[in-house]
Amino acid sequence: MSTKTDHIPRATIERLSIYLQVLENIQREGVKIISSGPLAKACNVNASQIRKDLTYFGEFGVRGVGYNVPALIQSISKSLGIDHEWNCVLIGVGNLGKALLSHREFSKRGFNIVGAFDCDPFKIGEELSGLEIVCTRRMKEQIADLSVRIGIITTPPERAQRAANHLVEAGIKGILNYAPARIFVPEEIHVEYVDFSHHLYSLAFNISMRKS
Amino acid sequence: MSTKTDHIPRATIERLSIYLQVLENIQREGVKIISSGPLAKACNVNASQIRKDLTYFGEFGVRGVGYNVPALIQSISKSLGIDHEWNCVLIGVGNLGKALLSHREFSKRGFNIVGAFDCDPFKIGEELSGLEIVCTRRMKEQIADLSVRIGIITTPPERAQRAANHLVEAGIKGILNYAPARIFVPEEIHVEYVDFSHHLYSLAFNISMRKS
Repeated sequence: MSTKTDHIPRATIERLSIYLQVLENIQREGVKIISSGPLAKACNVNASQIRKDLTYFGEFGVRGVGYNVPALIQSISKSLGIDHEWNCVLIGVGNLGKALLSHREFSKRGFNIVGAFDCDPFKIGEELSGLEIVCTRRMKEQIADLSVRIGIITTPPERAQRAANHLVEAGIKGILNYAPARIFVPEEIHVEYVDFSHHLYSLAFNISMRKS
Repeated sequence: MSTKTDHIPRATIERLSIYLQVLENIQREGVKIISSGPLAKACNVNASQIRKDLTYFGEFGVRGVGYNVPALIQSISKSLGIDHEWNCVLIGVGNLGKALLSHREFSKRGFNIVGAFDCDPFKIGEELSGLEIVCTRRMKEQIADLSVRIGIITTPPERAQRAANHLVEAGIKGILNYAPARIFVPEEIHVEYVDFSHHLYSLAFNISMRKS
């Protein structure tokens, strides 16, 4: 892996996830080689942007031939650190937590949810998608042997900070926060906020503006 | 509303959705007035950024006193076009579609899902969260009277483009696309892609980098 990958800007990571998505769809259709023009068109970005982004990953294109699709998928995956599996735990087994536990997108992408925690005594002990819901206070002992590095917060907003504290205490390295609340954690813990509301607001705003 | 709001940059809209979230949480705790310092801290951005962003909305701060929380919430909501309700339809009633229909976040934010469509004859006619699943081909006639302006795509990737075509044909103005595929629509239709995979990739990448 090139040392350049130490500094992939966030916007590039977002575009890389688009390229991966498109490349995986193309691969499913049996395409083995694609040149930057059609790839750019399928991704809805311009070709020079794609070529620039892919320089982070060294040379996967052959001039006059195109990119080798499986090799490019593998290289992007490796550089992003998603060529191996990641163990995650989830805190907060309400509607959203249940939906995430039951829908397969996480494990499809190599992110395995290996623990589900809640502080509601009525939920503790219940089984969901093969996981027994465990009391949040027992998280640290529960995940000690599982090399869990990612915590997913799906609590109500007012419990998000406490959930984050439990995760930090248990030794996780990154948090995916679905709760509509800001959380504060030590600097070395990476936090990603998943919030679809800005998509809704952006839609509403853009439609309103075009109408007027 | 200031004419400035015609040109709110996308990154500002993302931050505004954070401010709204924090202001709503603060309001629930009974806070009526907040100055930019504590507001910035709660939002995890710097105070000059907040002051700059809020200039898009005219003057809601009183020097030496702070922002009036309910007034600021209302003004941001109005400027974004979310001070009134939006009717939406959903195409693709698989696991994700069902989860979105049953979880209340959309309607809490004023986005009401008033129609659910699928092309699977085994699903058509089934009732979910009070909505009868209707054949996608009947969308146009079904939504004619409902002033639906937003379509939500939750199909598998290979059906996303066809779903988008149906929505455009039915006259919607904006699309929220959850399917992991790019879609192509006329320029005047606004598309938002909701994809949590780049959050996962960003987590994986950042954790990998910090470890090494």
